[in-house]
Amino acid sequence: MEYPSKVLAKAVEEISGLPGIGKKSALRLALHLLRQPESQAMVLGESLQKLVTDIKYCRDCHNFSDAEICEICSNPKRNDEVLCIVEDVRDVMAIENTGKYRGRYLVLGGKISPMEGIGPNQLNIPAIERKLETGSVKELIFALSATMEGDTTTYYIYKKFKHLKVNFSTIARGISVGDELEYADEISLGRSIQNRVPYDEKD
Amino acid sequence: MEYPSKVLAKAVEEISGLPGIGKKSALRLALHLLRQPESQAMVLGESLQKLVTDIKYCRDCHNFSDAEICEICSNPKRNDEVLCIVEDVRDVMAIENTGKYRGRYLVLGGKISPMEGIGPNQLNIPAIERKLETGSVKELIFALSATMEGDTTTYYIYKKFKHLKVNFSTIARGISVGDELEYADEISLGRSIQNRVPYDEKD
Repeated sequence: MEYPSKVLAKAVEEISGLPGIGKKSALRLALHLLRQPESQAMVLGESLQKLVTDIKYCRDCHNFSDAEICEICSNPKRNDEVLCIVEDVRDVMAIENTGKYRGRYLVLGGKISPMEGIGPNQLNIPAIERKLETGSVKELIFALSATMEGDTTTYYIYKKFKHLKVNFSTIARGISVGDELEYADEISLGRSIQNRVPYDEKD
Repeated sequence: MEYPSKVLAKAVEEISGLPGIGKKSALRLALHLLRQPESQAMVLGESLQKLVTDIKYCRDCHNFSDAEICEICSNPKRNDEVLCIVEDVRDVMAIENTGKYRGRYLVLGGKISPMEGIGPNQLNIPAIERKLETGSVKELIFALSATMEGDTTTYYIYKKFKHLKVNFSTIARGISVGDELEYADEISLGRSIQNRVPYDEKD
């Protein structure tokens, strides 16, 4: 595709560098911006640049943050005794959105994956160690993907810290709310029977 | 959805202002940029800003251009005698990609659409007049959408200039290459029979 303008060609090329956006969609987005008030593209461009220059990683939990310590870590009302290990910032957001967790987090930044060349050294495991050294953590919750890589990472961290006086737990795996048993995969169904919980009429 | 950082929230908000991109996709794109080298977001941001500040509209044909006159209008090898009227810059690119047209273009910037409040005054019709006044144009090709709005626009322009010594034509409407007659809509099929062309063994 030939573009009538180098500026347009450059914008299309850069936009189509984003995942899931091809050249045609990129052109559509660029033409959309050209039809809007100039300020929209200016603000969008600036906020993308600010995103990478201004965002910080929380020193304690490696969540994204505007300050050196993120809002969750600096909130005195959160429970220091439980620490939830997640792979990714998105997982923090997902768990926060449930409104069911008031403890702290630790973002690993990935999971052990020999296929992608990610070993334990690339993950924020020393940060877990620092958290555990404070002595306030009583329970470590693993909230990693229900995949082989997630399970490997959970096991690696468990083995590394199992000598410490701390309880380990993982988030429950089972049948999703709204699922019909007939269509559930047998592993999830098997786990949900094994890990059945006392019936609670208030649930 | 709560975001751990205001910079991230702002970026997500701005990205999701683009058509076809929701909050979830916007977050995915923002997190992608954060995983890439900082330069990618910087270059992307800059090229979006440059897009709206640096792009010009060709004085002659209203195509996008880096200079005051676009590459097509300033190319002396193009045929001044045919002028192709299109709605949009994308249509110029589409026709250029066919490699079958060597004349000039004129970008209307839309089509007459009472529903969207677009009347003839919002379109670049005076630019057609200027082109026709030079006396070099012998044929005006209408290459507008095959919709009611496109047809209305074609008719409006035709009526406005039909007193001038210039031939009017529209791009052929018919069966797309690769289509089976059985599944073609009857209007296209009807037109393609009415407007049949002499058989050419080289086609």
